Amino acid sequence: MSAPAVYFDHNATTALDPRVLEVMLPFLRTQHGNPTSRHSFGRTSRQAVEQAREQVAAAVGAHPSQVTFTSGGTEADNLALLGIAMTHAPGQVAVGATEHPAVMRPAQTLQGKGWQLARIAVDMAGQLDLEQLDTVLRHKTALLSVMAANNETGVMQDIAGIAQIAHRHGGLMHTDAVQALGKIALDFGAMEVQAMSLSAHKINGPQGAGALVLDKRVDIMPILYGGGQEKGLRSGTENIAAIVGFGMACELARQGLQQYSATTEALRDNLERGLEQLGAKIFGKQAMRLPNTSFFAFPDIEGETLVMALDRKGFAVASGSACSSADPEPSHVLLAMGVAPELARGAVRVSLGANNTAAEVQSFLLVLEKELLRLKQMTAMAV
Amino acid sequence: MSAPAVYFDHNATTALDPRVLEVMLPFLRTQHGNPTSRHSFGRTSRQAVEQAREQVAAAVGAHPSQVTFTSGGTEADNLALLGIAMTHAPGQVAVGATEHPAVMRPAQTLQGKGWQLARIAVDMAGQLDLEQLDTVLRHKTALLSVMAANNETGVMQDIAGIAQIAHRHGGLMHTDAVQALGKIALDFGAMEVQAMSLSAHKINGPQGAGALVLDKRVDIMPILYGGGQEKGLRSGTENIAAIVGFGMACELARQGLQQYSATTEALRDNLERGLEQLGAKIFGKQAMRLPNTSFFAFPDIEGETLVMALDRKGFAVASGSACSSADPEPSHVLLAMGVAPELARGAVRVSLGANNTAAEVQSFLLVLEKELLRLKQMTAMAV
Repeated sequence: MSAPAVYFDHNATTALDPRVLEVMLPFLRTQHGNPTSRHSFGRTSRQAVEQAREQVAAAVGAHPSQVTFTSGGTEADNLALLGIAMTHAPGQVAVGATEHPAVMRPAQTLQGKGWQLARIAVDMAGQLDLEQLDTVLRHKTALLSVMAANNETGVMQDIAGIAQIAHRHGGLMHTDAVQALGKIALDFGAMEVQAMSLSAHKINGPQGAGALVLDKRVDIMPILYGGGQEKGLRSGTENIAAIVGFGMACELARQGLQQYSATTEALRDNLERGLEQLGAKIFGKQAMRLPNTSFFAFPDIEGETLVMALDRKGFAVASGSACSSADPEPSHVLLAMGVAPELARGAVRVSLGANNTAAEVQSFLLVLEKELLRLKQMTAMAV
Repeated sequence: MSAPAVYFDHNATTALDPRVLEVMLPFLRTQHGNPTSRHSFGRTSRQAVEQAREQVAAAVGAHPSQVTFTSGGTEADNLALLGIAMTHAPGQVAVGATEHPAVMRPAQTLQGKGWQLARIAVDMAGQLDLEQLDTVLRHKTALLSVMAANNETGVMQDIAGIAQIAHRHGGLMHTDAVQALGKIALDFGAMEVQAMSLSAHKINGPQGAGALVLDKRVDIMPILYGGGQEKGLRSGTENIAAIVGFGMACELARQGLQQYSATTEALRDNLERGLEQLGAKIFGKQAMRLPNTSFFAFPDIEGETLVMALDRKGFAVASGSACSSADPEPSHVLLAMGVAPELARGAVRVSLGANNTAAEVQSFLLVLEKELLRLKQMTAMAV
């Protein structure tokens, strides 16, 4: 089978921007020093890492010294949750009910180590329940983790407002900004968080690089020990090419943010007008959302089935989130929003990129209409 | 300053083999699916990861199902030490005295969690003291970790023999084979270990990929939690291009092992004849060593100074190990071998690659002779 022509799964992973590959190639071809080495090969690599650190910091209004490179967003989330918890006596850790597994699962492992885990509810639009948050945080909470934007629905949270509540109760605040980076403006200082997770491969950068941006006054322990790289907070030889690519991807995302937002939002709105005409329920539509993401379902059509049918017609979309779609359960995000499990099983996500076009969206809607008709006829015959 | 023409620091990191880059490029250019995704982009990535898993397994005589991909050797070591320890009540963990920090430091963190840490001594040649090992293991030891070959000296350990002693006392055995892979033959089964760490960037593969090879009967917990990739043992979106490159690097290393060994050993022996004529003390020479590694010192010449002088003349060599040379202390490996701290501070490592030439070695020896003379004159003037 030939590859689908149209990629609508940018929240899962993105194609490398050719300008990113361009700056990576010298480090894959001729420049291969270990940044810890004293000789000039090593020094060149060290300078490249430090330049990338500046680029990543600039994309989120942080200081380069606040950026610790990791192998990706999952490691950054684990470092934030587990690394900060390790410096505290067990108490309460609180997370949003719709967090990514990279936050939810480390939080759950803390439960096994004497911590209490509080899941903060969301409303039907997917927005954090600030009243419940305030109540929950009255129990001494060391750390609150709430994502800036959800990977499935695109629903954004008011991170600065939430952080203020956390601080009022003496808690630290982490935000998983992996899906938000490059899609909405992020300002580490203005968001008033102590820690923020980022990933390169969601913004047309390479897989294998991420970062934890960290207020340096926060006590934190490493989760990987060894040669003492990244000022001892993340040991292991740096992935130079990926880090250099991450830096460039951040710079391009920063420069292209306005255009990205305008382009994808117009496409998304077009898409959703068509989806609603076809009878789709769109999740989180009442909330502030990322401009590129649409999460929807058609009653009585299984999401997985629709994804496979669309794949055969040349459209790559997701059912549930890519990172957990090995899991046959309906999306925990939708269940937390009070969506009925039957409808949640129908969920399909379209996540657009800056290179998608209006023609692709139109063609998608036409194919979708035919496939829905076919699937409904099959269902009718099977009954 | 122009880059040095001659790279003699292959134990720190290696240049990517052009054939490795070739198989990586499609995954950096057009093929960017997330392996968890159901659509054809995702399935192509999934197949590529599984093919690489077969290539890595074949390089060490393991079954593909025994291979868990990580972000590198450091993460593999941490996963082995911490992941296995987490499934046991605190007891004793034992490590060789000359282990890499990626093993030594996780072992030290276990000390903070109620574990006893035993460091097994080495003799003057750098070889593990098997009598002491046998005595130490009489205390109930959950896990013994001994490197297959040392990153600084190249000294090899009798892993199968050591594993048998560990098993006799009921302990599990891990080996850090990061420096051994591609330089000597490795057979996961014959070595009788339960876990083995590997890294791509030491064998002309990319930075950002490594593996833990694991006997599936061993209880182990993840150290990174999230989307459940790698059968739940290593969450986080796979670094596809790096994993594909790692697979190819393993295949090339397996095919080229005999030639690599013959080439580098002949060069190394030539080098060492010249070094000894210049008055060098060569560390670990009495032991079985990797064919490519020479670790030596000249009395009264500081290693760091010599490395910088050689760098200016176009030769990239290391003082101590690259991964810990941010550390001004003399090499813990040499101190464990009973080398006097003054001499240990003079240590310089040449680690050769298959593309180095006899002419480079000859030219190095000529430059070294001049630099030694110059440095001795400077020292004499300073006195």
